[in-house]
Amino acid sequence: MSSTFGHLFRVTTFGESHGAAVGVLVDGMPPGLNVDADAVQIELDRRRPGQSAITTQRQEADRVEILSGVFEGVSLGTPITMLVRNTDQRSKDYEALKEVFRPGHADYVYFEKYGVRDHRGGGRSSGRETVGRVAAGALAKGALATVGVSLVGGTVRVGSVVASGRDWEQVELNPVRCPDADAARLMQAAIERARDDRDSLGGVVEVVARGVPAGWGDPTMDKLDARLGAAMLSIPATKGVEIGGGFAMTERRGSETNDVFDGKPQQMARAKGGTEVRAIEGRHDPCICPRVVPVAEAMMALTLMDAWLRQRALRGREK
Amino acid sequence: MSSTFGHLFRVTTFGESHGAAVGVLVDGMPPGLNVDADAVQIELDRRRPGQSAITTQRQEADRVEILSGVFEGVSLGTPITMLVRNTDQRSKDYEALKEVFRPGHADYVYFEKYGVRDHRGGGRSSGRETVGRVAAGALAKGALATVGVSLVGGTVRVGSVVASGRDWEQVELNPVRCPDADAARLMQAAIERARDDRDSLGGVVEVVARGVPAGWGDPTMDKLDARLGAAMLSIPATKGVEIGGGFAMTERRGSETNDVFDGKPQQMARAKGGTEVRAIEGRHDPCICPRVVPVAEAMMALTLMDAWLRQRALRGREK
Amino acid sequence: MSSTFGHLFRVTTFGESHGAAVGVLVDGMPPGLNVDADAVQIELDRRRPGQSAITTQRQEADRVEILSGVFEGVSLGTPITMLVRNTDQRSKDYEALKEVFRPGHADYVYFEKYGVRDHRGGGRSSGRETVGRVAAGALAKGALATVGVSLVGGTVRVGSVVASGRDWEQVELNPVRCPDADAARLMQAAIERARDDRDSLGGVVEVVARGVPAGWGDPTMDKLDARLGAAMLSIPATKGVEIGGGFAMTERRGSETNDVFDGKPQQMARAKGGTEVRAIEGRHDPCICPRVVPVAEAMMALTLMDAWLRQRALRGREK
Amino acid sequence: MSSTFGHLFRVTTFGESHGAAVGVLVDGMPPGLNVDADAVQIELDRRRPGQSAITTQRQEADRVEILSGVFEGVSLGTPITMLVRNTDQRSKDYEALKEVFRPGHADYVYFEKYGVRDHRGGGRSSGRETVGRVAAGALAKGALATVGVSLVGGTVRVGSVVASGRDWEQVELNPVRCPDADAARLMQAAIERARDDRDSLGGVVEVVARGVPAGWGDPTMDKLDARLGAAMLSIPATKGVEIGGGFAMTERRGSETNDVFDGKPQQMARAKGGTEVRAIEGRHDPCICPRVVPVAEAMMALTLMDAWLRQRALRGREK
Repeated sequence: MSSTFGHLFRVTTFGESHGAAVGVLVDGMPPGLNVDADAVQIELDRRRPGQSAITTQRQEADRVEILSGVFEGVSLGTPITMLVRNTDQRSKDYEALKEVFRPGHADYVYFEKYGVRDHRGGGRSSGRETVGRVAAGALAKGALATVGVSLVGGTVRVGSVVASGRDWEQVELNPVRCPDADAARLMQAAIERARDDRDSLGGVVEVVARGVPAGWGDPTMDKLDARLGAAMLSIPATKGVEIGGGFAMTERRGSETNDVFDGKPQQMARAKGGTEVRAIEGRHDPCICPRVVPVAEAMMALTLMDAWLRQRALRGREK
Repeated sequence: MSSTFGHLFRVTTFGESHGAAVGVLVDGMPPGLNVDADAVQIELDRRRPGQSAITTQRQEADRVEILSGVFEGVSLGTPITMLVRNTDQRSKDYEALKEVFRPGHADYVYFEKYGVRDHRGGGRSSGRETVGRVAAGALAKGALATVGVSLVGGTVRVGSVVASGRDWEQVELNPVRCPDADAARLMQAAIERARDDRDSLGGVVEVVARGVPAGWGDPTMDKLDARLGAAMLSIPATKGVEIGGGFAMTERRGSETNDVFDGKPQQMARAKGGTEVRAIEGRHDPCICPRVVPVAEAMMALTLMDAWLRQRALRGREK
Repeated sequence: MSSTFGHLFRVTTFGESHGAAVGVLVDGMPPGLNVDADAVQIELDRRRPGQSAITTQRQEADRVEILSGVFEGVSLGTPITMLVRNTDQRSKDYEALKEVFRPGHADYVYFEKYGVRDHRGGGRSSGRETVGRVAAGALAKGALATVGVSLVGGTVRVGSVVASGRDWEQVELNPVRCPDADAARLMQAAIERARDDRDSLGGVVEVVARGVPAGWGDPTMDKLDARLGAAMLSIPATKGVEIGGGFAMTERRGSETNDVFDGKPQQMARAKGGTEVRAIEGRHDPCICPRVVPVAEAMMALTLMDAWLRQRALRGREK
Repeated sequence: MSSTFGHLFRVTTFGESHGAAVGVLVDGMPPGLNVDADAVQIELDRRRPGQSAITTQRQEADRVEILSGVFEGVSLGTPITMLVRNTDQRSKDYEALKEVFRPGHADYVYFEKYGVRDHRGGGRSSGRETVGRVAAGALAKGALATVGVSLVGGTVRVGSVVASGRDWEQVELNPVRCPDADAARLMQAAIERARDDRDSLGGVVEVVARGVPAGWGDPTMDKLDARLGAAMLSIPATKGVEIGGGFAMTERRGSETNDVFDGKPQQMARAKGGTEVRAIEGRHDPCICPRVVPVAEAMMALTLMDAWLRQRALRGREK
């Protein structure tokens, strides 16, 4: 079940990087919406390797074929399966990897998990798996647009170069996809230096959603922040995620962020309209961290427990 | 469904902060394991308010009652429901909140989402909802211990005070639950200053799992990192999560972290034992960020699409 | 996960027949609907043992307590947990069963499945588990009534006595809950004879839904018929289910039932209103059974495969 | 989500009868098992139209292509997607159906549900959707065989002709797939008469699983009987299902079937081996039907409630 994302808009990717194809099955697309294969292709082209000197030179046309769920350009409300054939696999490049596990890759844990693996490239752990995500995302973007929700995103940090501006129109105008043209040039230079050293650089990507109505989120376990966190951390090589102010909020007091504490007079929205200034009496924690510790341990324990039982289902044994 | 965490060890919390009770239903506990109500109580006592001068003075005994799924101290493999009655609610403190929405709280979005709310405290958005998580986590910890997996956690930052040491034995010896005794004193002082100013401070909590076998994680959408991220970001007031090296990795080149790039000779584990030094030829991205942008947008779009459809199911209308 | 029914209106029952309590957690109740504890109690009273001479004499008041999700008589949209304490358990009646497995009960398979069991009564396999279902059903009935959907049900066969009439007003007027007053008297007599012989009788229950809009069902795997079938076969001791005409349809040709074949002129609804008589040319099976055989085998194989993997997750081993 | 069956062995079919392809995505196949494309093809050939004079003359080669999840004939533990291209669609046969709804077909409810439909044949409601089920079933059969579980099935009734014998070797030797050679001839004659009248006949299919270990089933909501019932009733045109003795059990007393009542001395298995004869004292219902009525109503209400909320998610409005 680990290849599936979402409950009502359920997206399952499939395919190994060096198998016949990669793709995605989308179940839950509302019926009667335009599904434009060209719009899917545009997003795939943004993801495609070989776009510029600073991406991998693997060349794949990545032409999408829509196999089901669409009739005369309109969604039927039934599962939409989209397929991209693998063409430029050069599996022989990987033949030498049959007997070794690459450091920093999933090779070893795959073997430990499954007891068998497709050694030709990363299999499912390859970035190529994201083809299906991007194709499904194109459908989601199109559907969200019908209710006024749109997304922008860009690279806001590479190595030690940090973007200061957020001019989203810039993103597709530079190969780094940075919303700050000046920073983009510095980032590009840094990446080229790393490439020439046969090395690589990490960075930070920022995504912004506009027009999301209040109330779309759910509370508690499956709150929107948690789902966004899972969404982002499921992307290969991602190691951190921040929502809103993120870690920087740690530096600020509650009275500055309005996030935790009451007691000081604050401006409040009235249910019937307008605002008023009022102090709330209540009993609150001046720092919640000590009491979060057992909660964080609990959540990690729940996560690992689920992982353990999944592995038992998969392999049929302890370990 | 938003109150549920996990698939095979499925944990659903219930209860409002000012209703009759809070609790949890755990489905999927393997049968034949010891379930010790005292062990659950110990964890709840760690989470309990009123433990020290630096936590809220709300006093709740938080006595847990196990209603099902356990017979003679052993799990039956059937759903385990655990209940904690609310006793010190002081709902009248909140009567004044009936007509206003507190800033920085979930009051307003709850009303937008549900069209109705329990104005007495946060309802489900209250930290009190975590009682059920901690009770379930105690069961998970006990079960994980039978296969050699254990957890430790602590507060590693409060405001601008950062712990440098990691002496986990210290955690329960200071009220901040910090694994660094010196930092703990500074943290406590900072919290007391904020409290005296009727203000509050944020911080960072760190959790470490020991003894997790390679292979428990799943790949792609539901990978272990993604689930841990969701687990942590589902905790009230959490705004960021880092796995392993986290954001600091951005500062380092791939050759230092072994995370992205190949081409330089590296030491590799051999499937049949031993290691060898080898350079891998392949085609890779010197910086993956430009190509991550469309993937991150896609993942956000998938998340919002699911949220939208959930809200339609809940309310039966657009918006 | 086997105690859960439904996806968006997710109902999980809990509790053993001789434990502290039985109950249910309902997640997905739309907010803003009246939740009447009395309406829940009325349904529980219909299910309660000891109602008449022809039901078990176990006496349980079965008073329901609503623990969460309801505020001032209105649903909050959050999980609703309902609890019924067990009071008249007479567990000592069952002490003798510790070392034996009753024939025709779940005792043996429980032990094989879990390796441990609560020998006092059936545990989760007891009819007492249905307390939670009926409480949740009362909420569902109330919610469905707001969109004009209502249900009636009754006993339409006991042993060889078959009801011919369907006067649903009769159902609560006789202890057999038969919608045919004459048949009810014969059924009651037959049951009393069986009881006096220390024996028992089976029968058939019929349920009718009124006002269900066209289009609520889903197609294929999770079609409404399949879900109703699962719903009914999940009731203890149920061994068959028929939808609509059921097995009697086997006796009739397609031209009488309009279910399978085309080619003869038939009256058809026009999308734009009105009807027309037309023959459809197409290629169809004069009897679909030969081709259903591999499909039925496939569906049984899928079911068993899932059961196998669940058991591996539960017990962590083959077999 | 309605195209998915199973939780741990999760099978999702896709494709319309007159679209580009039909197929299936199987998530949860254990790794390291042989996956034989030929074995899949053999099952598809059994399902294929045009096999004999008594099946539809639509001719489709139905060649399966395995796109993912298999490497060198062995399952990788990752999603397996299988594809069958549609070739002999003759969509023009259906052009006339654009403006009318065929009686006894899903045409009308599809239009009510989705507001849009592929009028060329049944779309997802076509029997062609079962191609994906059979392909997935072939994988399941192969996996189950590794733990000694096997399946047989056949047609045991056509119209009023009932098979008396169960010689499963006969099934593939006659076009009706009947395990009774004499009955098969009568069935075939009856089908040919119906076909010559441009009419059709219904029937009953029986499937038997061998070697299933005690304990694979789950209790309560998701019990094995319920899942099998859902599995069978999800097959197009199926209107009834019986487990074990089925409706015929209604004719017999509990003492004959051991299914309900205690009080008479019975032979019981001892946990420590051997048997003993004992009477169990307890309090039981001489006929459970009156108390099943509210439970059956509850289960139908839960089913409809879930269907309602799904439709709200799909269409974003009431009705």
